[in-house]
Amino acid sequence: MVARDAATGEAGSGDATATRDERRALIRVARGQQPADLVLRGGRVVNVFSNEIVPAEVAILGGRIAGVGQPGAYGGAREVDLGGQYLLPGLIEAHTHIESALLTPGEFARAVAPHGTTTVVSDPHEIANVAGLPGLRWMLAAAEGVPVRLHFTLPSCVPASEFEGNGATLTAADLLPLASHPRIASVGEVMNYPGVIAGDQTMLDMIALGRPGGATPRGLAVDGHAPGLRGLDLCGYVAAGAQSDHECVAADEALEKVRLGMWLWAREGSMRNLAALLPVILEHRPERSGFVADDRTCGDLLRQGDLDHILRQAIAGGLDPVQAIKMVTLYPAQYFGFADRGAIAPGFAADLVVAPDLGNFWPSQVYVSGELIAAEGQARFTAPPLPTDLTAHVTDTIGLRDFSAERLRLPGHSGTARVIGMIPDQIVSDDLRMEVEARDGYLAADPRWDVVKVAVVERYGRGRVGVGLLHGLGLRRGAVASSVAHDAHNIVVAGANDGDMALAAREIERMQGGLVVTCDGAVVERLALPLGGLVSPLPAPEVAQGEDRIERAAAELGVHIARPFIFLSFLALSVVPDLKITDHGLLDVAAWRIVPVQEG
Amino acid sequence: MVARDAATGEAGSGDATATRDERRALIRVARGQQPADLVLRGGRVVNVFSNEIVPAEVAILGGRIAGVGQPGAYGGAREVDLGGQYLLPGLIEAHTHIESALLTPGEFARAVAPHGTTTVVSDPHEIANVAGLPGLRWMLAAAEGVPVRLHFTLPSCVPASEFEGNGATLTAADLLPLASHPRIASVGEVMNYPGVIAGDQTMLDMIALGRPGGATPRGLAVDGHAPGLRGLDLCGYVAAGAQSDHECVAADEALEKVRLGMWLWAREGSMRNLAALLPVILEHRPERSGFVADDRTCGDLLRQGDLDHILRQAIAGGLDPVQAIKMVTLYPAQYFGFADRGAIAPGFAADLVVAPDLGNFWPSQVYVSGELIAAEGQARFTAPPLPTDLTAHVTDTIGLRDFSAERLRLPGHSGTARVIGMIPDQIVSDDLRMEVEARDGYLAADPRWDVVKVAVVERYGRGRVGVGLLHGLGLRRGAVASSVAHDAHNIVVAGANDGDMALAAREIERMQGGLVVTCDGAVVERLALPLGGLVSPLPAPEVAQGEDRIERAAAELGVHIARPFIFLSFLALSVVPDLKITDHGLLDVAAWRIVPVQEG
Repeated sequence: MVARDAATGEAGSGDATATRDERRALIRVARGQQPADLVLRGGRVVNVFSNEIVPAEVAILGGRIAGVGQPGAYGGAREVDLGGQYLLPGLIEAHTHIESALLTPGEFARAVAPHGTTTVVSDPHEIANVAGLPGLRWMLAAAEGVPVRLHFTLPSCVPASEFEGNGATLTAADLLPLASHPRIASVGEVMNYPGVIAGDQTMLDMIALGRPGGATPRGLAVDGHAPGLRGLDLCGYVAAGAQSDHECVAADEALEKVRLGMWLWAREGSMRNLAALLPVILEHRPERSGFVADDRTCGDLLRQGDLDHILRQAIAGGLDPVQAIKMVTLYPAQYFGFADRGAIAPGFAADLVVAPDLGNFWPSQVYVSGELIAAEGQARFTAPPLPTDLTAHVTDTIGLRDFSAERLRLPGHSGTARVIGMIPDQIVSDDLRMEVEARDGYLAADPRWDVVKVAVVERYGRGRVGVGLLHGLGLRRGAVASSVAHDAHNIVVAGANDGDMALAAREIERMQGGLVVTCDGAVVERLALPLGGLVSPLPAPEVAQGEDRIERAAAELGVHIARPFIFLSFLALSVVPDLKITDHGLLDVAAWRIVPVQEG
Repeated sequence: MVARDAATGEAGSGDATATRDERRALIRVARGQQPADLVLRGGRVVNVFSNEIVPAEVAILGGRIAGVGQPGAYGGAREVDLGGQYLLPGLIEAHTHIESALLTPGEFARAVAPHGTTTVVSDPHEIANVAGLPGLRWMLAAAEGVPVRLHFTLPSCVPASEFEGNGATLTAADLLPLASHPRIASVGEVMNYPGVIAGDQTMLDMIALGRPGGATPRGLAVDGHAPGLRGLDLCGYVAAGAQSDHECVAADEALEKVRLGMWLWAREGSMRNLAALLPVILEHRPERSGFVADDRTCGDLLRQGDLDHILRQAIAGGLDPVQAIKMVTLYPAQYFGFADRGAIAPGFAADLVVAPDLGNFWPSQVYVSGELIAAEGQARFTAPPLPTDLTAHVTDTIGLRDFSAERLRLPGHSGTARVIGMIPDQIVSDDLRMEVEARDGYLAADPRWDVVKVAVVERYGRGRVGVGLLHGLGLRRGAVASSVAHDAHNIVVAGANDGDMALAAREIERMQGGLVVTCDGAVVERLALPLGGLVSPLPAPEVAQGEDRIERAAAELGVHIARPFIFLSFLALSVVPDLKITDHGLLDVAAWRIVPVQEG
């Protein structure tokens, strides 16, 4: 089977002789002729190949599993008795965005490692939209020295569309030099599915980066993203080369995608579709499937967990535990071609999770390459320092131009208006028609109908501002704003009045990124995100406290939905239906054009 | 997912622009915007991803599947109504030896295509043992122009061991230039498992040919072969890099190999272990599994079929038809990294099989790249001519030295002797102790106890002859001989008297290869195999008639087992337990040394 070396993420190490000597030692340990570095005994091994749980002990040498034997088969320099706990492969996250947790790669790893996550594939399109190739290089460099295996995708849609003014445009030619980087695992989610099925050259070039013998000898997976795409258009998207989807909303949509050979990632992050898709997984047992977090806030990560949380949900929903574990181990490993990860067998990387229970799944020990990286809920490593030479590329990234409260005005008349409607737990939005009242020729927030103004303020010095109306946030006073606003990460601000909205945007500019709540002309709460306007340099608990504080502050102004800043951050994403707002204005995603808030 | 292009077997075609234009056309056909080359409608599609059967129609363009849609979705230049028949992916043979059917690649393809086989991975170690690299190049060249996708392995054990005098020695360095040939799919069965687990450099070098970034950028699968290997030694073999096994004898052995991550190929060729292994497949549903023929005679192929025969057996044995079909489509495709084969979905190669019934599975139409290559039991193509420039390397390959009937004498005394014991349907043999009677200081055949003499006559001009005793063949008069004698393909001859044995060997030399039956000083029957002493240039039906004739002739001399020449051909294979005979003499495989027929 096509192999990718776990230690480097790439084909064999440079010195073939050394590799053979290591292999010979591995064979000797496997046969019990030489002591292992580490023996894990007394465990119940979750076997993803034979679909069962087997008492066995595991001998490890040089970061790899040498042998899996009967109890008593092996001896080693260190021996750990698991006392009847379960031993399973390290969990593999197939699709997430580290930036969405507002954390650096190192702090993200410290947060997920105690939950059993040993490999992460993150699409860095947030930092790429802000800082382009230098941003990507910063991200790759920031992952060095982190014991969790951090991989990244080549972000395929930067900008997400022509309707988002962002900080960089990345073509396939731009990304080509990065394609063979050992941390690159796939072509990132190809969100511009209308472009793909229309045969746009830029998108086909991007997909071609994944072809073997093109950008890389062995090829890369091509991640898809096609919410609601069905029928012959979906066939076109698959024929173009998109291989996975994590955006299914409905079970029959998911089944259609599975039938066409797409890998189905069921998402249970801060946005979720697991409950909707679980029936398909239970009935059809698709092998091309897995669980992903996609976007998860730092607070959710600390409180709920990571893939362990999804496992608990899926098992509680009726999925066989071994099957559920395969969906976060063997299957994602197969998708990416991580041939020596995702299972416990000779030659595999010694990435392992120990847990007392599978249903109520909380890891007690987590190993990467045979090293204990987390135990009893705590990471056993510190985040490496940020790469000093590259970090300058991701600081001081926000500059507003010609901005003032007047730019937030929304001329209009009493009558029907198109209003963005929030949908709980989804990143899609409704395209509502509501009756609104104008005052002095302008439309304003109307708390009686749970309508506020929403604006996207371009942050890269071009000076564009898009203004519209939003229903469902609950905000009655003041304003909430964020520089996390997919994918261009302009400043998205929702508010009951223009003054507080403008103040919030200005405060974000002052902090060079962050989340802000304002009211009555004052900043009520803030969380600074100075790295790209997306990420905090602080550890996860401190960031989560900041999130809590700012969510409480928003709630005190009337916001009645959970995770309001996540919802806010998807309002500007032009590639997700139905009605969105960008720095160009109100966007009808289905019609694929900027539309007025009111006709006439 | 790591991809390998079906058309060439390798990474994308040279002209990236052409590929993109083709891709754009594929998308248009998928979306119904442009007519397909071919539409297959009215079929019930076996969906290997959703594990179900779904009525759907399939649109094909340029040899690839563009779309799979609802009935009525597509139109095409040609449209075929399947009338409710099943439509499934083309069958993939993961491990066979074309030479064992005594056919050229083109005639082999003509024989298997009507049975639904569209991809074959053949280990050419028979021709390699005879003719070395030129033999391999002949085999690769003979596959050109054959519409069935013929792939080959890099034969890893030529010679199989130091105890077999053969025609060539192939090291990893010798094979390196062939590794990137588009028809090469894996490192061939690594039969010298004692060498592997002992850490022999030559064997580790051979396995290293499969590592990505070594001989090929993307890596090759590494086929294993380890009958009866268990426990820690098996761990050592897996740790060394062996990835599959088709030699399991017992169910618990198979389960042990599955648990360690090996791909389990259940064999149902002229030798079989399917019945023994099916319980493991039924209980554990291993995804790393498949069905293979390994060695199948031409006659068995024509009478029983190929993978279709195995499907019928497996389904009759209780296996779910969709699961059984996955084992000869999707799973072997995954093993070899044939990312666009083994399923019916957009972008996949249009390799398809139509069948009226799944349980009683007989294909009615077989397509490769959307072209009908067989229908109603008949191939729709002719075998291409043999490559004239290379065929000289595989003719005139047999030369006996210092050979006469006297060389077949077996000095001994009345008392206990070690006798090779045949085991029905297995390539392993027993190591028997029997009481024998000597006459004039020599041991001879004794039909009362079903014991005959057996000899291996070296054919490459070195003049060695090994002589022993064999129980269980049934031969009472005359002799039977073959130049097909794994793996060195010396002449193996079993007989009731030395004269007929010598005559048989001489007749094989005269024909430059073949099967012979002699009796009372005359050649009773013969089948010429002049290509490498292994293969006939004739079409399958004529070869099968020749096989039938010679088996009948053997039966008339008392041979009472089915397929006696297959049994004969494995008597000289040094890497299969327990007791074998080679040109060096009687071999105790477990002890790994030449042993005398009698002590003292």
